[in-house]
Amino acid sequence: MKVAVDAMGGDYAPHEIIKGAVEAAREFGITVVFVGDEVAINLELSQYREGQPFSYEVVPTTQVITFHDHPSEVLRTRKDSSLYRAIQLVAENKCQAIVSAGNTGAQMAISLFVLGRIRGVLRPGLITAIPSISDGPFYFIDIGAVADCVPENILQFARMGQVYYRLVTGKETPTVGLLNIGEEAEKGSRQMIEAHKLLAARSPGFIGNIEPKEAFRHAADVVVSDGFTGNIFIKTMESTAETLFGMMKTALGSSIKGKVGGVLAHSNLRLVKEKLDYSQYGGVPMLGVKGISIVCHGRSDATAIYHAIRVARNVSDEGLVTKLEALWK
Amino acid sequence: MKVAVDAMGGDYAPHEIIKGAVEAAREFGITVVFVGDEVAINLELSQYREGQPFSYEVVPTTQVITFHDHPSEVLRTRKDSSLYRAIQLVAENKCQAIVSAGNTGAQMAISLFVLGRIRGVLRPGLITAIPSISDGPFYFIDIGAVADCVPENILQFARMGQVYYRLVTGKETPTVGLLNIGEEAEKGSRQMIEAHKLLAARSPGFIGNIEPKEAFRHAADVVVSDGFTGNIFIKTMESTAETLFGMMKTALGSSIKGKVGGVLAHSNLRLVKEKLDYSQYGGVPMLGVKGISIVCHGRSDATAIYHAIRVARNVSDEGLVTKLEALWK
Repeated sequence: MKVAVDAMGGDYAPHEIIKGAVEAAREFGITVVFVGDEVAINLELSQYREGQPFSYEVVPTTQVITFHDHPSEVLRTRKDSSLYRAIQLVAENKCQAIVSAGNTGAQMAISLFVLGRIRGVLRPGLITAIPSISDGPFYFIDIGAVADCVPENILQFARMGQVYYRLVTGKETPTVGLLNIGEEAEKGSRQMIEAHKLLAARSPGFIGNIEPKEAFRHAADVVVSDGFTGNIFIKTMESTAETLFGMMKTALGSSIKGKVGGVLAHSNLRLVKEKLDYSQYGGVPMLGVKGISIVCHGRSDATAIYHAIRVARNVSDEGLVTKLEALWK
Repeated sequence: MKVAVDAMGGDYAPHEIIKGAVEAAREFGITVVFVGDEVAINLELSQYREGQPFSYEVVPTTQVITFHDHPSEVLRTRKDSSLYRAIQLVAENKCQAIVSAGNTGAQMAISLFVLGRIRGVLRPGLITAIPSISDGPFYFIDIGAVADCVPENILQFARMGQVYYRLVTGKETPTVGLLNIGEEAEKGSRQMIEAHKLLAARSPGFIGNIEPKEAFRHAADVVVSDGFTGNIFIKTMESTAETLFGMMKTALGSSIKGKVGGVLAHSNLRLVKEKLDYSQYGGVPMLGVKGISIVCHGRSDATAIYHAIRVARNVSDEGLVTKLEALWK
């Protein structure tokens, strides 16, 4: 299996990207195809001549997409960028998946344009795993691909989310909940009331509206939302956690007893932080495009990239795209 | 000054409600007017015969509104409920404010119907204080009054939020940020792009879109949003914090070292929990109705009610309604 890696995308590119990809190549015995500036890539790769050998290729490109570039423009003007070329390798069947920590909007736009939509899919969505109080994470879709949704989009997210959840966990009929501001069917915005009706009528496994509190208790395997609300949800969750950890650090530092307690409790509290660490989940697949395009956080380090490639391998092995195509056959 | 207190509303009514109101009456030298079941109220009040005297009245009612009652129905069928009568006391100028921890939807509907809207206000909104990493809290509006907003609603929330922030802090021109999924003006849903344009053109102090992370850093004094997104934002924040504290408790209990550390760090971590504790902020005023209607959390204890009455007194003293009316003169 070959995975195309956008070597130039992300806050810590190319160093952390290549480091994580080399680890993945060694561990999983796959070929990583580094796409980007040839000189920069080879310089990084020179650090891995020692140690366990691994399989790789380099595809040189001359352009780079930054976080400031607009998705609509990159389609026209960045055809020789690392991201564009990496996605093309999947469209050309030269690679089975592409992994990038670069500009998410650009990756979605290029994936949609170059790979195309699965027949029947109105708009692809982004799904991610979120830790819950119970053992397993729940999955949330859409975390920001489609800011303006019609109810039909949300129904499709539910169906694609179920396929993904089944693929990851083996559960035959994952439950689906609609993120909303109240449990009753008539709660929420007009859009959510309509989405609720549609899900109730056409989504097997639909258990109704769920509020954030219930979501964190894993009240549903798959939680669906429009991409605007979903993006606010996930960003609020991340920044609340960050704020809390920051406040705790300050509070523990404010007294000797607190400092000692903090040191003793450190390894335990670290477990919580690790459980919440997005990098353990790597990247998230864009569901609904004809190919595997894994979107990583801009701040991805080597560990995140390693796990993103693990996700890419797993969903490719399990035939994600074929299974999604079957939904509309 | 007289504050009407819905003695029957809330998870811990009437006990905690009356306890908090008695404390407030003693501390602030105001009169609390308890509205609700006369027998139940007098039974509770019998506990406070000893100690510092305080001023109170009892207005007996025969009906109760539960959390399951629908706002539209209570308007027709619950005119002798504690909540309805308490709000009427404000409309009749017999009280200067009303405080309830009961059904929020019902309180908003009755306040709107009985007190009426301030001339010029399209839809009243709910504002709340949220702790930030910096010293002072920022204020967020709307946390759930208006699920379906047009951009003009959001502009009005911004203006009313600024008046409230000025009243609480004394800052002449509070800054305003629009909660959104990206900083650039063209980010977000169509609704938010339009709201951004309107705020940029007509809201002095508008600093642009802000993401949740920036909100917690107090990037703006007043953060505005539609009520659906705002309710998801605040509930996600609350439940992330609860989930984290739950996980930490479990993690600290998993080893001796963790347990000892947890005990030592307890008082420090408690500070963080207290900083996040909504009950310190009491209740939140409904902005845009012709009267002071303070909405409290259903789980409000005596401390929350005490602080809610403090808020009621302060905003009454500062002439909140007159200041809001001036916006549309």
